[in-house]
Amino acid sequence: MPREIRLNAFEMNCVGHQSPGLWAHPRDRAWQYKDLEYWTELARLLERGKFDGIFIADVIGIYDVLGGNGEAALRQSTQVPVNDPLALITPMALVSEHLGFGLTASLSFEHPYPFARRLSTLDHLTRGRIGWNIVTSYLDSGARNLGQQALKDHDARYDYADEYLEVIYKLLEGSWEEGAVVRDRERRLFTEPAKVHEIGHVGKHFQVPGIHLCEPSPQRTPVLYQAGASSRGKQFAAEHAECVFVAAPSKSILKKTVADIRRRAEEAGRDPRKVLIFNLQTVIVGETDAAAQAKWRDYKQYASYEGALALISGWTGIDFGQYRPDQVLEHIHTNAIQSAVEAFSSADPNRTWTVRELADWVGIGGFGPLIVGSAQTVADELQSWVEDTDVDGFNLAYAVTPETFVDVVELLVPELQKRGAFKTEYAPGTLREKLFGEGPRLPASHPAAGYRDLAALEAGRRGATAGA
Amino acid sequence: MPREIRLNAFEMNCVGHQSPGLWAHPRDRAWQYKDLEYWTELARLLERGKFDGIFIADVIGIYDVLGGNGEAALRQSTQVPVNDPLALITPMALVSEHLGFGLTASLSFEHPYPFARRLSTLDHLTRGRIGWNIVTSYLDSGARNLGQQALKDHDARYDYADEYLEVIYKLLEGSWEEGAVVRDRERRLFTEPAKVHEIGHVGKHFQVPGIHLCEPSPQRTPVLYQAGASSRGKQFAAEHAECVFVAAPSKSILKKTVADIRRRAEEAGRDPRKVLIFNLQTVIVGETDAAAQAKWRDYKQYASYEGALALISGWTGIDFGQYRPDQVLEHIHTNAIQSAVEAFSSADPNRTWTVRELADWVGIGGFGPLIVGSAQTVADELQSWVEDTDVDGFNLAYAVTPETFVDVVELLVPELQKRGAFKTEYAPGTLREKLFGEGPRLPASHPAAGYRDLAALEAGRRGATAGA
Repeated sequence: MPREIRLNAFEMNCVGHQSPGLWAHPRDRAWQYKDLEYWTELARLLERGKFDGIFIADVIGIYDVLGGNGEAALRQSTQVPVNDPLALITPMALVSEHLGFGLTASLSFEHPYPFARRLSTLDHLTRGRIGWNIVTSYLDSGARNLGQQALKDHDARYDYADEYLEVIYKLLEGSWEEGAVVRDRERRLFTEPAKVHEIGHVGKHFQVPGIHLCEPSPQRTPVLYQAGASSRGKQFAAEHAECVFVAAPSKSILKKTVADIRRRAEEAGRDPRKVLIFNLQTVIVGETDAAAQAKWRDYKQYASYEGALALISGWTGIDFGQYRPDQVLEHIHTNAIQSAVEAFSSADPNRTWTVRELADWVGIGGFGPLIVGSAQTVADELQSWVEDTDVDGFNLAYAVTPETFVDVVELLVPELQKRGAFKTEYAPGTLREKLFGEGPRLPASHPAAGYRDLAALEAGRRGATAGA
Repeated sequence: MPREIRLNAFEMNCVGHQSPGLWAHPRDRAWQYKDLEYWTELARLLERGKFDGIFIADVIGIYDVLGGNGEAALRQSTQVPVNDPLALITPMALVSEHLGFGLTASLSFEHPYPFARRLSTLDHLTRGRIGWNIVTSYLDSGARNLGQQALKDHDARYDYADEYLEVIYKLLEGSWEEGAVVRDRERRLFTEPAKVHEIGHVGKHFQVPGIHLCEPSPQRTPVLYQAGASSRGKQFAAEHAECVFVAAPSKSILKKTVADIRRRAEEAGRDPRKVLIFNLQTVIVGETDAAAQAKWRDYKQYASYEGALALISGWTGIDFGQYRPDQVLEHIHTNAIQSAVEAFSSADPNRTWTVRELADWVGIGGFGPLIVGSAQTVADELQSWVEDTDVDGFNLAYAVTPETFVDVVELLVPELQKRGAFKTEYAPGTLREKLFGEGPRLPASHPAAGYRDLAALEAGRRGATAGA
């Protein structure tokens, strides 16, 4: 029995998410990101293809490391202009029944009290189909516009994130007991006040004394996604995340990463199989291998070198404008570049790779691998990645939108289904039930479960104080 | 030719917005506020009735002045639980073509940089149908949960608001010139960097050096709504607001208020007819006067005394739990109560009014007046309010939802149309064009227009410095 492969669509409320320059392709419709119809059509398509979800990335800030300004990013619409992702979710929910929605939202830019209300609202209106991609932020250009000189120290950001999540968990899991809303018309009683609790949070970063403003939603806490690649980020993911996004360019790197995440989850007392890991992946699927290769060659004519450098410079913090295109990569030291070099080298250890070749790699779909071929070829390859690396599925970037997703839904998904490696029906229930086959709420082993009984927590604190 | 009357629906993402207790009425569907279908059906209904818009109120916080806690508010679902309004707008936009959307958002709870992006995004996705109700916030219970001890001093809040709007105007009006986005496939040029400007804002509350993240939306700045009732609030409205919401319980008060707002707008250099003023209003319409009166008596059985006191206590800051229901109102001194007493007295100067009678008044639709009758009776009355007070239209609260709006659309609107006092077709274009019959953008007389040419502003500052 082949292992099931899971697919997410990787999108962003902007033009040319991770394919800078391909907005100029005659069939690309990314520039219609401002039209609701672009998004509702995409949602219908993805649900037809039994995608688990659409994952909407976000940045607040612009890619202004290349050349020390945002001009290249603007010229190539490299994630600028970029609109707010939140407003996209409910219209897509209206035209679909099962598709999940991964909302990216940075902890640095909104206080947890109103943000908790946004999450509950979305979970209510989608009937429990919301995931939240927890981001601790990486563009200094965004932080500066919020009056912060630069983003806080990396590890300190994760300490802040821990407290942020504590507030969210208390509000979503603890403030309203099950059954608090009775809506009893005879007794004229809507909510039983004794079952609604003030969270009384007093921390280093936040003081939140009151109750959550929303009644419990189907999942309470949305499905938690995380994409941190650093050691501290992986630790945070292992403790909190139910789904982890990674961007490993080679099998050897991915295998190590997956094992590391599962090990850390187990050490945190969680079931390592209950952390779903998705690798960033781009696929170009055609009727035949030759047709797919031709499509790829066509796409590549539109890829933008300066747009790719704007992305790479923003991600790494290094101004790649200072290097010649033929500069050899191994002389540039960052984790991201080392990963790329390792990936390239695994294919051919005897050759070197240049800045231009890195830009070509990243320019269609980002740091993830690219597979080009017929449905059979791509299915073979994806199955071998799953077998060899223990990854659970893929976060599919587009080259040209929605064409990349149309090809996947019409060609690749039926092939995977034929092989028994892809669902033919959605599981019932909320996004969490669809992904993990258990209840709609976080399991008892998750740290959020510790905030469900606020009264007991409070009594415990009092007891500890009395005993001291 | 009778004067045109404009209608907005007054809603909130909660149960029993300004009709505490009426959630228990067998036909009330407010408890379905968590279902997208409730909202999309409402949007279709209102568009059928040629409403200008749906105006979504909001509070962050709970009504906890009555008895010093939120228990009454919870029991009667008096604006708690309350969900985020933002997620409602795009699904309603998807099923409508003309209806406008008034989003309430407080300046105190989100930084202007990400908030500007939310506004632009909504204006794009609705194709220019967004209004923004600028709120400077009034529930201390909300402020405390955001780590503020209590809301800032009232007048200081408006100074903060002035700077907040300056940042918003610079981002929405000044950062991206017309024509900055060229999307030129031949030249592989999406945005012309020379036409995108950093706003360089350095103020007392905010430092925002960068560019706006979004390309210009149809209206750029959404239609600006304001509801401030204080003197400083009215001044703020006169300078900035294109639509003003008031809640005057009698014609004499409304007439004074309308004249005052128009006078202040004129003093601020604006056309006083280009400020549209809407009074809060509840109408209960039936096939006949007798049927409407019977409907009202039916509704009143469900009104909640403690729910009404929770609202009044929250609005006035006075714990009405300390008074007996038969306590005479004139001994309780607040602006809101004095308005109510004046309104009551204008009907019958010789009688006194009690707390119970105030609660009965407020308990169906809030502080605005209530009109009960056939379509003819209600139309007569609304027309006389417009004639006598110079108000432009009404912000209709519901008693029972959507029934109140269904009655208006099916009975009242056709009657007003027959009299030539209500539009039979929407005007074309954006919300601003529909309301004011001119262009999609704010007029040159509005303070926002002063931020359109950031380069000139910058040169002016330099000149001033050089001259000093």
